Amino acid sequence: MIANPKIIDVVQKFADVRKHSVAICAPLEIEDFVVQPIVDVSPPKWHLGHTTWFFETFILTPNFPDYEVFDPQYNFVFNSYYETIGARVIRTDRGNLSRPSVADVYRYREYVDQQMINFLQSDFMNSSIETLVELGLNHEQQHQELLLTDIKYILGHNPLFPAYKKGHRNEKVGSGSAKMISFPEGVYEIGFKGSGFCFDNELGRHKVYLQDFEISDRAVTNGEYLEFMKDNGYTDFRHWHAEGWDWVKQNEAKSPLYWHHIDGKWMYYTLEGLQELDLEEALCHINFYEASAFAAWKGMRLPTEAEWEVASEHFQWENRWEWTGSAYLPYPGFKKEAGAVGEYNGKFMINQMVLRGASEATPKGHSRNTYRNFFHANLRWQFTGIRLAK
Amino acid sequence: MIANPKIIDVVQKFADVRKHSVAICAPLEIEDFVVQPIVDVSPPKWHLGHTTWFFETFILTPNFPDYEVFDPQYNFVFNSYYETIGARVIRTDRGNLSRPSVADVYRYREYVDQQMINFLQSDFMNSSIETLVELGLNHEQQHQELLLTDIKYILGHNPLFPAYKKGHRNEKVGSGSAKMISFPEGVYEIGFKGSGFCFDNELGRHKVYLQDFEISDRAVTNGEYLEFMKDNGYTDFRHWHAEGWDWVKQNEAKSPLYWHHIDGKWMYYTLEGLQELDLEEALCHINFYEASAFAAWKGMRLPTEAEWEVASEHFQWENRWEWTGSAYLPYPGFKKEAGAVGEYNGKFMINQMVLRGASEATPKGHSRNTYRNFFHANLRWQFTGIRLAK
Amino acid sequence: MIANPKIIDVVQKFADVRKHSVAICAPLEIEDFVVQPIVDVSPPKWHLGHTTWFFETFILTPNFPDYEVFDPQYNFVFNSYYETIGARVIRTDRGNLSRPSVADVYRYREYVDQQMINFLQSDFMNSSIETLVELGLNHEQQHQELLLTDIKYILGHNPLFPAYKKGHRNEKVGSGSAKMISFPEGVYEIGFKGSGFCFDNELGRHKVYLQDFEISDRAVTNGEYLEFMKDNGYTDFRHWHAEGWDWVKQNEAKSPLYWHHIDGKWMYYTLEGLQELDLEEALCHINFYEASAFAAWKGMRLPTEAEWEVASEHFQWENRWEWTGSAYLPYPGFKKEAGAVGEYNGKFMINQMVLRGASEATPKGHSRNTYRNFFHANLRWQFTGIRLAK
Amino acid sequence: MIANPKIIDVVQKFADVRKHSVAICAPLEIEDFVVQPIVDVSPPKWHLGHTTWFFETFILTPNFPDYEVFDPQYNFVFNSYYETIGARVIRTDRGNLSRPSVADVYRYREYVDQQMINFLQSDFMNSSIETLVELGLNHEQQHQELLLTDIKYILGHNPLFPAYKKGHRNEKVGSGSAKMISFPEGVYEIGFKGSGFCFDNELGRHKVYLQDFEISDRAVTNGEYLEFMKDNGYTDFRHWHAEGWDWVKQNEAKSPLYWHHIDGKWMYYTLEGLQELDLEEALCHINFYEASAFAAWKGMRLPTEAEWEVASEHFQWENRWEWTGSAYLPYPGFKKEAGAVGEYNGKFMINQMVLRGASEATPKGHSRNTYRNFFHANLRWQFTGIRLAK
Repeated sequence: MIANPKIIDVVQKFADVRKHSVAICAPLEIEDFVVQPIVDVSPPKWHLGHTTWFFETFILTPNFPDYEVFDPQYNFVFNSYYETIGARVIRTDRGNLSRPSVADVYRYREYVDQQMINFLQSDFMNSSIETLVELGLNHEQQHQELLLTDIKYILGHNPLFPAYKKGHRNEKVGSGSAKMISFPEGVYEIGFKGSGFCFDNELGRHKVYLQDFEISDRAVTNGEYLEFMKDNGYTDFRHWHAEGWDWVKQNEAKSPLYWHHIDGKWMYYTLEGLQELDLEEALCHINFYEASAFAAWKGMRLPTEAEWEVASEHFQWENRWEWTGSAYLPYPGFKKEAGAVGEYNGKFMINQMVLRGASEATPKGHSRNTYRNFFHANLRWQFTGIRLAK
Repeated sequence: MIANPKIIDVVQKFADVRKHSVAICAPLEIEDFVVQPIVDVSPPKWHLGHTTWFFETFILTPNFPDYEVFDPQYNFVFNSYYETIGARVIRTDRGNLSRPSVADVYRYREYVDQQMINFLQSDFMNSSIETLVELGLNHEQQHQELLLTDIKYILGHNPLFPAYKKGHRNEKVGSGSAKMISFPEGVYEIGFKGSGFCFDNELGRHKVYLQDFEISDRAVTNGEYLEFMKDNGYTDFRHWHAEGWDWVKQNEAKSPLYWHHIDGKWMYYTLEGLQELDLEEALCHINFYEASAFAAWKGMRLPTEAEWEVASEHFQWENRWEWTGSAYLPYPGFKKEAGAVGEYNGKFMINQMVLRGASEATPKGHSRNTYRNFFHANLRWQFTGIRLAK
Repeated sequence: MIANPKIIDVVQKFADVRKHSVAICAPLEIEDFVVQPIVDVSPPKWHLGHTTWFFETFILTPNFPDYEVFDPQYNFVFNSYYETIGARVIRTDRGNLSRPSVADVYRYREYVDQQMINFLQSDFMNSSIETLVELGLNHEQQHQELLLTDIKYILGHNPLFPAYKKGHRNEKVGSGSAKMISFPEGVYEIGFKGSGFCFDNELGRHKVYLQDFEISDRAVTNGEYLEFMKDNGYTDFRHWHAEGWDWVKQNEAKSPLYWHHIDGKWMYYTLEGLQELDLEEALCHINFYEASAFAAWKGMRLPTEAEWEVASEHFQWENRWEWTGSAYLPYPGFKKEAGAVGEYNGKFMINQMVLRGASEATPKGHSRNTYRNFFHANLRWQFTGIRLAK
Repeated sequence: MIANPKIIDVVQKFADVRKHSVAICAPLEIEDFVVQPIVDVSPPKWHLGHTTWFFETFILTPNFPDYEVFDPQYNFVFNSYYETIGARVIRTDRGNLSRPSVADVYRYREYVDQQMINFLQSDFMNSSIETLVELGLNHEQQHQELLLTDIKYILGHNPLFPAYKKGHRNEKVGSGSAKMISFPEGVYEIGFKGSGFCFDNELGRHKVYLQDFEISDRAVTNGEYLEFMKDNGYTDFRHWHAEGWDWVKQNEAKSPLYWHHIDGKWMYYTLEGLQELDLEEALCHINFYEASAFAAWKGMRLPTEAEWEVASEHFQWENRWEWTGSAYLPYPGFKKEAGAVGEYNGKFMINQMVLRGASEATPKGHSRNTYRNFFHANLRWQFTGIRLAK
């Protein structure tokens, strides 16, 4: 059989993406793979197993005749939330499982990788499966981002503050004032267009009517946020949503996540370890409540996701997921896929806010200006930032 | 001084609205005024006191020289959520307060009413205070609706199922099929227009772009919802949001609120007591999760609030607050008022869904097709229903 | 039929005890009968109904032919914890029930009282039922004490601090030093003896071996406890059990219940309203953790219940339930009664501490030096105090 | 210096005990050292570090001049509950710490072991320090038992049910009927006597008066407990304490911990993996509520700790910690040690029950018939069993 160049591409892409997950984990100790300090954080070995389970469950088992499941119990261990696929370890218990060991999980990956590569080159492949493989790879890339955010949480909440690895410096955003870019009111279009991969929640390119708006050409910096903190940002309820204010009081919140006031100086935990706060770097690790309170204090607001998308070609994304003022809801005409992959996005479209852009943890090739990321308003362990609008 | 007819109107309106709150409570036993079976329900005497406190705190104290507060402790007891106005009884404790007694609360009302009538006819009145008085009256009307929903909850969750009073029959929606009304895509306008009263969250009439849509000419009936229940509505996760499914399982939900399956028959608690379910009546007391699951099961969806508003002149409202698919967010250009009344709406604009229309509990004269009601997705003690769209 | 003097006695005693419950509630507003500010406190109308239900359920229904239950639903409403007797309103929901109304509960009492008086004079009475009637009356007396403690909690936690009634002054214990009374080691006897009524948990008079001990001739005063507070009593963990220390920190405990530091002065809520703290009165409303920490700070300890009982004829009881160092466990040979009344005491013999004596809220004729009261170590809404031993 | 034979003994004992902890952990994977599936279970690496920290903190730092602490942060990580010694990781967070790594903890052990061996042979040793060393070794032996119970929990709650190691069979108790041994009433003595090591809570040998009693010559077997289960043991509330019954319902308890009903057969997880239930083995892993309900069902009771101790020379201990009917309270004349070690026992003397005997997990040489073990009534992850009395 003469090799099909398109298949070679898929095999190569598959191998590359899969290798990258392993590379992210290379600096870890075995112990780091196991723990789950909060429910939102999953143990790294769980991410490695779950992304593998995705290919086994949705590609190999239904499509590759004679495929033998690596271990029938792994379905129970590595299913995340697919009700269609049966019972699963409850989310809060992921950090209670010492087995399968990290070595077992890597064996699982190697087994499934080899089978996948065989399968991708077999006659059982077809274009609808290819779409599913692409979904699997994008799914793995999402977990690559989560791997980094979760590793940062695990190490950054350890009293010894171990570094992840050197070479994770952030670029400065700059110290000057931000500029506001203006857009006139009118009908615009948003949503995915083109021919590459996108998630179902980006589909349905459609018209929206926007009022006049202005949007900042850069993200808010640590220095600017420090001004807010100094001006009673966390003690004046008037800037906050009622829920946000409850969150401040219950958590005695006084600063972004990972910031520590030590000996009169602001430090923050970075992937290189504890460092002195860089005032010119883009602010990171704030939740929607904080983003919104900061904007209110500034006399501005967060952009809607439509404004952000329309304006996105006119500014630089700053390696932060930018909170928008838009709730995560279906686009007009949104349709869930049939079967288990239909559970991918639609069922989360309630009580979450949209973030746009991409972060320093997003894998290369996994960002688009139509990408709709979403999190609950109280969460801040992602690499989240602020861009102002008015 | 010659009586100013406009002032006479305000005095009359004030007296009418205030009297209506008392009338709602007339059928109650004293004990019914006191309890708070769940956090969302407030004791009726609290509503009576709180609406009175609103006039005392925002009108009389700042504007009527020599006004003497009825009891300085009542600010602590009857403040609802205004951080600006100082400490308050925490919400969950409202049902723990046997004092002030119901008689004391009525004395409080009479005192403040008399003072208000004096004030309204005094030279201290002006047009900006009149605006605030109007807000106070609309605020009281909102609490009149809550009084009825809370009374229904208090009596409807008592094992003796006492009736509130006779004469609270609902009209039938009809047994035939619903018809879908079509609207073409294009730019429409929504938001309050005209010169009467509206809340700040309705302001900023603005253009929106809508895709083609169809919307039902009537609400979903009990009979239609029963079909959903019989077709595994509450046991098939595929219809539900992930959060909604968690809600079903945690609460072992199997039917709308107030429905009881007794001796093989569906009964429901109404304000007249326990009755056999009327299949042709508009469905009531379902939350957003249920509304949304029902629509998914039907292969349809809930209308957005813009669609609802645009279409609202073409159908009859059925005495139900209709869940929309829109999150409660600020309209373009939304501005909070200065001072305490700025806490009225804006700070709740997160994690709630918009409801449109009005219910059998809404006071006459308190509804508009631009009115934006909002509740959390899990709540169903309001008179809520469903209108389908696609 | 010639009246039997013994029966006349029982009828009289029944009428007296029943009347006293009503007398305790005479000063209340109707609203005060309804609320349940914490799970341990029951609404007064619940106590009035529950004690009535006891006679209806255990005396009339099984023994009085043709007796008609007042309302079949009341079993659900007024059962406290008897699993034998069927389903019941969960304890935390007692304060959510506005009905039956207070008037209904009084009608229920009158109905059952009349029936009981008929029954007591009927031929259906016998000596084993008489024992049960006596249990019912002692049960009602226990609830008379709870009525007062619960009323104090309800009014004393209202921000208006209403008085219950005048004339509830406490006597002073005196300002001089306490004296220690000595007892030699040896075999003693404890447990109920004699022919009157006692609870099953007092039965089995038996020998115990006590070491030498000394016990104080009076209770600890407010003034003495204030010394403890001033000497870092609530901030030095060394005095406390680990659980007690957790309790202090979680509740930010700084003083006994009902104490308020206002304008530099210690005040406390009494049944007469808010008063200045009387330093010579017996300390009240502390839990076992506090009692034990105070004793540790003094270099002493709490007496065991055996020590207390043996010594009790040599000192005055000071109208406080005195915490002992004894866990509430069965006496040797303890036997549960058959049927529902077997649930009275035995099933609570775990994780509670014994209190001895009686309090200002204990009805006359309801105290014995063999009486074993018991509460969880964290509770302090009872009239509890401290007597030291070493 | 000529070696002091007594010191050589201490050094040898120190080395032996320390080595045994490491031996217990030898069969584990690194991942097994890290997790904490419930709050009561500590990660094995925490036990290894904490026992080491005990020697560093209480022996080396205060007594060995120029001793350098291995890592100043370890005090925060490995302090268990000593308030005297400063802040500490909260207990529920132990399983969230991936660092220090297992290798680091072993380095820590080696460092402290070497220093201890130097210290034990130095002139800084004296007899009061030797007492403390002995406490440290007994403390480590207690943690050796906990290591095994926690490892069993970690592996036994993993869906893969991995074995700990082979060779952990239990001996049979026998299938015949148990015999009851009788004791006459009278004055007995209990408490530690002799010259070896004991804990402070065993001290104060003292007289107690016991009534006639009988006690079983062997522990209850799995087979006997299965009878209880088949006779509605877990569904008939009458056998249970009220708290125990709540525990049954909340946890849907139906069998001892580690029992699984699979394909119609009772299996249980043992340290050798999942096995078929051996009916003749001593029952294990039940809590006080279950022990007490079983005894009630049998028409018997649990022995008091005094009865157990008096009778203990007349029966065989069956490798189970035997629940007694005694609350964990101070013996007459109990005194806490000064300083941090005073926190060892006394502060836990509330709301726990005494267990007597020893288990298959107790290290050799760490058991006495005066030993007072104690746990909360709801816990069952220890190797706990039942001996009946009447």
